[in-house]
Amino acid sequence: MSANYRNFRNNVPWLILFLEAVFIVLFYFVFPDHDASKSSISYPAFQDVSHMVIFGFGFFLTFLKRYGFSSTGFNLLIIALGVQCSALIEGLLVLLPQREDEDGLKRITKAAMSMTAVVISTGAVLGKTNPVQLILMTVVEIIVFNISRWINKTFLQIPDNINMMHVHLFGAYFGLAVSSRFSQPSPRSEKNASTPKSDLLSVLGTLFLWVFWPSFNSVQAVKDRNKAIYNTYFALAASAVTAFVLSVLTTKDGKFRMTHIHSAVLAGGVTVGCAAHSIEYPWIAMILGLLASVIAILGSYCLQRCLNPALKIHDTSGIHFTFGLPSVLGALAQVVLLVI
Amino acid sequence: MSANYRNFRNNVPWLILFLEAVFIVLFYFVFPDHDASKSSISYPAFQDVSHMVIFGFGFFLTFLKRYGFSSTGFNLLIIALGVQCSALIEGLLVLLPQREDEDGLKRITKAAMSMTAVVISTGAVLGKTNPVQLILMTVVEIIVFNISRWINKTFLQIPDNINMMHVHLFGAYFGLAVSSRFSQPSPRSEKNASTPKSDLLSVLGTLFLWVFWPSFNSVQAVKDRNKAIYNTYFALAASAVTAFVLSVLTTKDGKFRMTHIHSAVLAGGVTVGCAAHSIEYPWIAMILGLLASVIAILGSYCLQRCLNPALKIHDTSGIHFTFGLPSVLGALAQVVLLVI
Amino acid sequence: MSANYRNFRNNVPWLILFLEAVFIVLFYFVFPDHDASKSSISYPAFQDVSHMVIFGFGFFLTFLKRYGFSSTGFNLLIIALGVQCSALIEGLLVLLPQREDEDGLKRITKAAMSMTAVVISTGAVLGKTNPVQLILMTVVEIIVFNISRWINKTFLQIPDNINMMHVHLFGAYFGLAVSSRFSQPSPRSEKNASTPKSDLLSVLGTLFLWVFWPSFNSVQAVKDRNKAIYNTYFALAASAVTAFVLSVLTTKDGKFRMTHIHSAVLAGGVTVGCAAHSIEYPWIAMILGLLASVIAILGSYCLQRCLNPALKIHDTSGIHFTFGLPSVLGALAQVVLLVI
Repeated sequence: MSANYRNFRNNVPWLILFLEAVFIVLFYFVFPDHDASKSSISYPAFQDVSHMVIFGFGFFLTFLKRYGFSSTGFNLLIIALGVQCSALIEGLLVLLPQREDEDGLKRITKAAMSMTAVVISTGAVLGKTNPVQLILMTVVEIIVFNISRWINKTFLQIPDNINMMHVHLFGAYFGLAVSSRFSQPSPRSEKNASTPKSDLLSVLGTLFLWVFWPSFNSVQAVKDRNKAIYNTYFALAASAVTAFVLSVLTTKDGKFRMTHIHSAVLAGGVTVGCAAHSIEYPWIAMILGLLASVIAILGSYCLQRCLNPALKIHDTSGIHFTFGLPSVLGALAQVVLLVI
Repeated sequence: MSANYRNFRNNVPWLILFLEAVFIVLFYFVFPDHDASKSSISYPAFQDVSHMVIFGFGFFLTFLKRYGFSSTGFNLLIIALGVQCSALIEGLLVLLPQREDEDGLKRITKAAMSMTAVVISTGAVLGKTNPVQLILMTVVEIIVFNISRWINKTFLQIPDNINMMHVHLFGAYFGLAVSSRFSQPSPRSEKNASTPKSDLLSVLGTLFLWVFWPSFNSVQAVKDRNKAIYNTYFALAASAVTAFVLSVLTTKDGKFRMTHIHSAVLAGGVTVGCAAHSIEYPWIAMILGLLASVIAILGSYCLQRCLNPALKIHDTSGIHFTFGLPSVLGALAQVVLLVI
Repeated sequence: MSANYRNFRNNVPWLILFLEAVFIVLFYFVFPDHDASKSSISYPAFQDVSHMVIFGFGFFLTFLKRYGFSSTGFNLLIIALGVQCSALIEGLLVLLPQREDEDGLKRITKAAMSMTAVVISTGAVLGKTNPVQLILMTVVEIIVFNISRWINKTFLQIPDNINMMHVHLFGAYFGLAVSSRFSQPSPRSEKNASTPKSDLLSVLGTLFLWVFWPSFNSVQAVKDRNKAIYNTYFALAASAVTAFVLSVLTTKDGKFRMTHIHSAVLAGGVTVGCAAHSIEYPWIAMILGLLASVIAILGSYCLQRCLNPALKIHDTSGIHFTFGLPSVLGALAQVVLLVI
């Protein structure tokens, strides 16, 4: 452990404490009143999002041997900090042009959803960053994401619920951009290894995300909530089936491979994110889910073998094909559906 | 690995892909419109059923050493396929006599509940089937179960919510019937062994099912929902207490035994399934729960020692006494209560 | 194993069976009718409390090597018994002065919340009691707690929802009082040891409790539910951040320590319990969360080194500083807020 790194390490608690103090002071000025009016978001819907971020993504990222359960704990720290930060920035941005009344529950739901971007980005730099870098990344990413959402909303007139669904796209490519700044670890390094047990925990996290994904896609859709749930569920089902099929077809021994399931099962949910509330027929959602799964597994082959070595990007947990490509497909699908 | 089996294995992905394609085409014809009207089933209620099927039964069946977490993954594949299949058949059957409007959320909730039958049946043939057999069993069982429900509803005038509660009865005896077609594995086979760790995971699944069982019994009861929850909860509590008592009494060293807890804790919930919304006093539910637990544990002794060897039925996870006998008791109790 | 202890052991099933029979008979007399009227408590809110008690506290207490998953099973037995007992006593006390109509769902929600006191007390005597002692403690504690709540409500006119929030305070100090009656186990005993794996499971339970704590604090607040959720969430977030900071500052190697996270992460939620629905601004909740976390970690140092050896109290899972001190702080904060 170099003296330089030890200094870094000693700064962690003071940095966090400073941030927390700043947050409390800003909360004092930004949220002077407390409207307990009836919220448009139900409490169980918020809870589902909270579970996804804390448990789902927490376990989703535990597949490295050296970052087991403790990464779940660290995930909690990042989210506890990030949610406060996100609520603050949203509050500050709302102050700018016109005062839009938002109740408390909606505010923390949006803050928790924004944190998804950070958690996805964490997946790309897993095992390469130290805590200080991770906390700085959290704060910077949350600020940039909220500003990008505010620009989309104010200047491009994109409604808030569609806006939020770009969180996967933003998280994946922000993570890749940060990851390209770090040197690639040697492939034989122990830090990069996974054990069967940690792989299995990761699949558990994937199952958790799979079950809660309809909640995530429907939490902001007020009018067409049932439609969003229905479409997302069938997209996820088609996606899961395709993931198992392709996993058998692409491996030599004809067995299911964890990493394929891990990356492709959720692709359908990511893809229909933007359009879930506007797709008219379930078969469209199912075809999108099928395509998303195909893209995720083919992408994992092409990217890991061709593109990543060429661009010198090291993407620890494959967020590029797990979240990046399916959300690009989703954006394309939404444009096509709008045109039709 | 014989050449025959390898051929089988190679067929798996194409069989699944073919099914998925058929499902998408049929969805196109069967569900032409998408009514997003207010559903009679709330989203959290559907989520609870979805959790039970994916997590609860997923872990409930992980007690074999060789079918650990990966069986949880395989469970996901079966459910993703089966839910689509069940939604389709329900849609087709509804077309026959008169068009009854069902919203999307109710449709997938019923599909997920129907899958419980398949998952219970899987428990009887665990470790004896290959994936192709399991997928065929899923499709056939879902078709037969939906047709039996449709016959009950149309010709016997049994209301839909009671109808659905026969899912445990159907699942258990369908599973036993399928199981009797397979040769019994040698008792010393490694495939039949369980480790303490896998047993514990299975108890975790049982706890999960225990907590969510009131949701399962109340999801379709519109008017008497609170009554169904209340009765189920006390039946489960009485059942859990009795399971611990009988476990100590029937073992020589006076310790709690996992397999007893595993099979008897849920018996109360299964038994009051049909009658939960019509039982007037909680003490009746408690007595039913107590009796169900006694039957499950006594049944596990009698069946495993006398009946099963005689009939040459091998019931891997004991679904006969875990789900079969308590649901027979439940059906009897309902008849008695109706007469009184 | 001494003959005395074996006698004890043999009595367990008969004691439990006797209790269960008494419960069923009393249920027959106490709950003659079954009002299925609309409940003031929603079913998802009850489910969250049920999850917390069964899973959250179940895993929270699994950090001893010898009391692994099986303690989770035993937790289920205690809760199944205790919930019936608590519902009965509440029903009996309600009979006394005036008949207050309570629906079934509210009754079991309150019973499950009361069980939190017992589960917290269990933490102090973990590894020192046998099952008979534990079951007797459960019954006695539930009776005393319900009587204390009834006195508070009838004579001190404290509303029911604030009343219930003293459950942590009551549980912690009742547990300590019971614990002081037991001899201290030798510190080198294997019973007192924890493994990294069991520590990790315990952190998993803590995460579970963290996510569900806003439900617990808001379940009884009818009018200000959103406010209670909002305040609790930010108190928990500030508490989690502070716990990580203090954990790094107080350890020599600058690493996060599980036991600190374990005890301090929840302190914020415990502290704002009573006042969650009446705090006007989120920054007050955040400062309370920060203070609670500081008190919990400083308390863990002072109590374990100075006070506990002097008073000869052995507190296995540190419930004194995890639940006791933060709830004292919460009571003080509520008085201060009422005065202002």
